[in-house]
Amino acid sequence: MIKHALPVTRQADFAAWYQAVISEGDLAEESGVRGCMVIRPWGYGIWERIQRLLDDRIKATGHENCYFPLFIPLSYFEKEAEHVDGFAKEMAVVTHHRLIQQDGRLVPDPAAKLEEPLVVRPTSETVIGAAFSRWIQSWRDLPVLINQWANVVRWEMRTRMFLRTSEFLWQEGHTAHASEAEAREETMKMLEVYRSFAEECVALPVVAGEKPEHERFPGAVATYSIEAMMQDGKALQAGTSHFLGTNFSAAQNIRFQNAEGQLELAQTTSWGMSTRMIGGLIMVHGDDDGLRVPPRVAPWQVVIVPMLRDGPEDEAVLAYCRELQAELAALSAFGEPVRALLDQRPAKAAVKRWGWVKKGAPVIVEVGGRDVAGGNVSVVRRDRLYRDDGKLDSAILARGDFVGGAAAMLADVQQSLHSQARARMDANIRRDVTDFTAIEAHFAEGNRYPGWVEVSWCRPTGAELDQVVERLKALKLTARNVPSDAEPASGTCIFTGEPAVERILIARAY
Amino acid sequence: MIKHALPVTRQADFAAWYQAVISEGDLAEESGVRGCMVIRPWGYGIWERIQRLLDDRIKATGHENCYFPLFIPLSYFEKEAEHVDGFAKEMAVVTHHRLIQQDGRLVPDPAAKLEEPLVVRPTSETVIGAAFSRWIQSWRDLPVLINQWANVVRWEMRTRMFLRTSEFLWQEGHTAHASEAEAREETMKMLEVYRSFAEECVALPVVAGEKPEHERFPGAVATYSIEAMMQDGKALQAGTSHFLGTNFSAAQNIRFQNAEGQLELAQTTSWGMSTRMIGGLIMVHGDDDGLRVPPRVAPWQVVIVPMLRDGPEDEAVLAYCRELQAELAALSAFGEPVRALLDQRPAKAAVKRWGWVKKGAPVIVEVGGRDVAGGNVSVVRRDRLYRDDGKLDSAILARGDFVGGAAAMLADVQQSLHSQARARMDANIRRDVTDFTAIEAHFAEGNRYPGWVEVSWCRPTGAELDQVVERLKALKLTARNVPSDAEPASGTCIFTGEPAVERILIARAY
Repeated sequence: MIKHALPVTRQADFAAWYQAVISEGDLAEESGVRGCMVIRPWGYGIWERIQRLLDDRIKATGHENCYFPLFIPLSYFEKEAEHVDGFAKEMAVVTHHRLIQQDGRLVPDPAAKLEEPLVVRPTSETVIGAAFSRWIQSWRDLPVLINQWANVVRWEMRTRMFLRTSEFLWQEGHTAHASEAEAREETMKMLEVYRSFAEECVALPVVAGEKPEHERFPGAVATYSIEAMMQDGKALQAGTSHFLGTNFSAAQNIRFQNAEGQLELAQTTSWGMSTRMIGGLIMVHGDDDGLRVPPRVAPWQVVIVPMLRDGPEDEAVLAYCRELQAELAALSAFGEPVRALLDQRPAKAAVKRWGWVKKGAPVIVEVGGRDVAGGNVSVVRRDRLYRDDGKLDSAILARGDFVGGAAAMLADVQQSLHSQARARMDANIRRDVTDFTAIEAHFAEGNRYPGWVEVSWCRPTGAELDQVVERLKALKLTARNVPSDAEPASGTCIFTGEPAVERILIARAY
Repeated sequence: MIKHALPVTRQADFAAWYQAVISEGDLAEESGVRGCMVIRPWGYGIWERIQRLLDDRIKATGHENCYFPLFIPLSYFEKEAEHVDGFAKEMAVVTHHRLIQQDGRLVPDPAAKLEEPLVVRPTSETVIGAAFSRWIQSWRDLPVLINQWANVVRWEMRTRMFLRTSEFLWQEGHTAHASEAEAREETMKMLEVYRSFAEECVALPVVAGEKPEHERFPGAVATYSIEAMMQDGKALQAGTSHFLGTNFSAAQNIRFQNAEGQLELAQTTSWGMSTRMIGGLIMVHGDDDGLRVPPRVAPWQVVIVPMLRDGPEDEAVLAYCRELQAELAALSAFGEPVRALLDQRPAKAAVKRWGWVKKGAPVIVEVGGRDVAGGNVSVVRRDRLYRDDGKLDSAILARGDFVGGAAAMLADVQQSLHSQARARMDANIRRDVTDFTAIEAHFAEGNRYPGWVEVSWCRPTGAELDQVVERLKALKLTARNVPSDAEPASGTCIFTGEPAVERILIARAY
């Protein structure tokens, strides 16, 4: 039996395994500040790669980056009723702007109480809407297409690193348009940017579709999401795109004179993706030896570990490694220079190798005196760590062959991670369930990996929808989204027996 | 006389001119949130360029990026006495984590009062120090070299966009070392990174040196800065690097076992550069027609403005412009692809041209039907906008010649902005002042552009230093830094008459 690098397996305890990947891979840690994490260099490096690649796509679709204030006056939130209902319960509130010493302790200075408390932004529709109302006068000012990379805070009672933290990092796009058709097109365009980014860069297969009414963003007319399947079969919402109609423009007075000289409300959208994506990456690509980072978002794609013996031959090994690093850095993979690290930290080669396995570097190259003598390198691919006999699959390759094939190898690792995840998701969406008792049976306790079910429903509203939500909740289930590429619905609604109008995904979820 | 693009000149009212550059160049605006600004796409685009180029240099010197919490518990601040004295008076304090509706208004929920208030980080030494104390056990764990890009908040009573805002964006580097010598070397290395970055990328001539004792960062053993000269002769501190000794490691218990097995306190440093740099860029490079952005940090380096007549010939002009844009984008300047924009907004060409002049795009190219017919382009360089006769200096160049020389032209604009600023700074530092009455005379009311003076002093401390500070304050002057490359001091201290030990810069400052 293989002795894996993590102290716990996915099978034994998925939640503990997730925490182990994060701590053993040096991705993040508890900060000592309630609900907030420290993102360590390897975790933040993955975020930087996500930022760079997603930002390129956001800019390529015509959006520009800006920056809006961290603080939002309370009164801004009072304007959009649904929005405030959705967020008011979990916000950090700044009430004072000075501290004083009192009995040797620091306390908020009662003389420095703010007249109007400030909310630490949970999202920026209100403050950006206020700017839009200043910027937009005429149809000529439209569309406005902006995005910001920022930290936001939503006070969370139960937190889990990357997936649900009080402070998190994200990008939030905000746009205003002259027509509903154009705003709806923008909403779908950004959903597609998220879908293709997740699939192509993070190697994350996802289902894109519209959220049901009760799962909409507070104040939205329609909310769309991409949903990814974790290795415990649960769903993770990994990005959302909202069509806001005129709800925010009415509250924020975002009006423009149309070509006919009449005043109209602008149609707005917003869309966001966050550090939550890293949680999804871990739960989709990690294995019992730690994380496996898709090469496109790996801070280092190839890590070179020299095997040194504290002897005179070490210098030749290091020189060989430096040349190898330079050769790799001169290559291009995925249209960018290959990111190759020479790990010269003072530690044993085996310790370093397993450290990089746990971090999930896509390709690990070991170089010892014998490799130098033979002009070789010893190569481990993180996506296929073991041979069939359970031994570490370390291949000895001629250095020139390895370098010549390195870009293709990285592309292959990227592809193989995606294929594995895609196969797992496809195999675990049941589409043959036609009555609710079958759902109960499918998600019964004994089924460790129930995956998702896609069923026909009548798109209920109001009290009827509430009943559906309650029935699902009793099974710890939620309605995820109506997949854009689902087959047309047929037959009757699995919840009400009425004629079905669409197909919807049901799953346990993070 | 030239009719300039801005409504106010530097000469007439420097402060109003500064605001005009910012608003007419669409760099930033008031947000409606006290002390916080909205950074608009052109301003944020400059910040993104600064981030990218500075981040490359921070990484090239061995640092990795991380992310630490926005919120810092009050108790963390109580540990380092000098530090808390320096910051406690101007911090935003979060006291509640929920809002409730009361009489139709939102108010902080009294039931959701935090047991320990949280401070919105004014800087992160304390929370990062707590992480260092977890990460560092042995000399093998050292050095720790990290950086974060983040927003920070210091409650400011009087704000000015980019220069002094309650919330601002910055990077803060934090490092821990086994020896004082190594930590001091790091402090000086990052000062040099800032100096060379300012000079080479922002075209900002600066004086690097050590701040006098009373201007040190709260808790630092030594603080170094780069100081830039604005066009009104005032100084702007544009980056700081601090040697913190063991002050923070003692407060935060950052200890390591040295090679001999004994416990030692780590030696730490911190260093930061912020959006303030954009204020400096404006005040150094702006002119009476708006901003002039050095090409290396310009979001768009070449802007192509088509001159359209709403006729059938427009398509040929646009096709010509698109080809030109593609040719430029295929070029490399400063080791990166040239950033060329084709401005197709629905507005008159002259309006667009002057918009880009005010924004400070380095090179503006206009293309009309006549240019297309002749295979030409009309080129305006933002660093030399007018001919000697006061007319706009728009040169007609053969398209091939322009494209072939575009990278060199951008390098020349970068160089010329730096040279102009360098000449101005060099011409306005007086080094011949040897008694205090001469300082008084030099900075007397009538002298509109006094610049700086560099004088000899005895590096006073305690009450003697307080007296010096007071005397300077009466003239609205401050001691900036002791230039690293100053001549050795000679003669007597200009303040005390004691033997001088070093040369120090005196200036009015932002």
